[in-house]
Amino acid sequence: MLAQAIQFIIESEKLKSIERQTSPLGLSRRENSAEHSWTLTLAATVLIPAVAPDLDQLRILQMLIIHDIVEVDAGDTFCYGDQTGKAEREQESAERLFGLLSEKTGKEFHQLWREFEDNETPEARFANSLDRLMPLIQNYHNKGGSWIRHGVTYEQVYDRNRQIQNGPPELWKYTEALIEAAANEGLLPRGFEVEPHKG
Amino acid sequence: MLAQAIQFIIESEKLKSIERQTSPLGLSRRENSAEHSWTLTLAATVLIPAVAPDLDQLRILQMLIIHDIVEVDAGDTFCYGDQTGKAEREQESAERLFGLLSEKTGKEFHQLWREFEDNETPEARFANSLDRLMPLIQNYHNKGGSWIRHGVTYEQVYDRNRQIQNGPPELWKYTEALIEAAANEGLLPRGFEVEPHKG
Repeated sequence: MLAQAIQFIIESEKLKSIERQTSPLGLSRRENSAEHSWTLTLAATVLIPAVAPDLDQLRILQMLIIHDIVEVDAGDTFCYGDQTGKAEREQESAERLFGLLSEKTGKEFHQLWREFEDNETPEARFANSLDRLMPLIQNYHNKGGSWIRHGVTYEQVYDRNRQIQNGPPELWKYTEALIEAAANEGLLPRGFEVEPHKG
Repeated sequence: MLAQAIQFIIESEKLKSIERQTSPLGLSRRENSAEHSWTLTLAATVLIPAVAPDLDQLRILQMLIIHDIVEVDAGDTFCYGDQTGKAEREQESAERLFGLLSEKTGKEFHQLWREFEDNETPEARFANSLDRLMPLIQNYHNKGGSWIRHGVTYEQVYDRNRQIQNGPPELWKYTEALIEAAANEGLLPRGFEVEPHKG
């Protein structure tokens, strides 16, 4: 069982090569999915006592630790880009990667990953909320970051992150304020805005 | 409390700029302390069921998530290099960073970090074992990696990692085999070796 676990750990090092669209706060390089995953576990550790003390913290951390591991084979898919084939690629990757582990641990990991993806349990909803919220915080403080680079609009961001409503109310309130501030500061163009009349 | 937690998360993004001596497995760039911390949480998640099922997994994960956070101010100190002032720098950093949080959460984080550093509880020993083991795995598979770059010897590695003995026996057995293999393959020179006689 130790040999299988080590093999899985070795394989998972590849997540450090998977680049996301978002940059770490204050940096111009893009961040990789490994450091992104760490941030979410840290955010969960500080936010759970503040806004979700009744949730199963261990399960949330386990989900966040492995939530992106399937990108080792499937790569990162930009959340405002084409999602074609993403689910199939990730499912195949999950089967290969979790198949490296002992049957029992592999099954548990697969279930954890599925729980995160299905986004139905309170723990999964909290974990998914953080996965959405963190890039907002990074882009906002990076003067628009990947929003600007890809011409993402206020409406796109609002729509995609609407599901943070499924998490704790304080997180959604914070999210809405952040998106409004970003729009007001010109970091997220509002699609319904019309050119001002001239002359 | 939410605002304090978010401020702490924003500040912790700086860990992604802190470079360690070790490279991720298969890459030539050096890894940062954020992605390193993620790897340890992943390793804990797969290894605990295999070799330490009775330990408090949540506490181990929490410790690993924050174990390097003080490097935000204090920087990374190479484990085979000069350790002067490390403890003081890290203590000051801990006070500032955990002081950003609410009093209760800040105190809990400070205790977790202290527990890791003191390396006395079974959970801290397990967490510290992984912190030592992971660079061995990376350097071994990276053809010597930072050992070669810094001329580190078999004896140095053996001495520094001896404390993995405080963790589960299977981990120490694996560690010893790995260090011996590295030495046998010429990745770690044995200091007591003498030049062969010539002529």
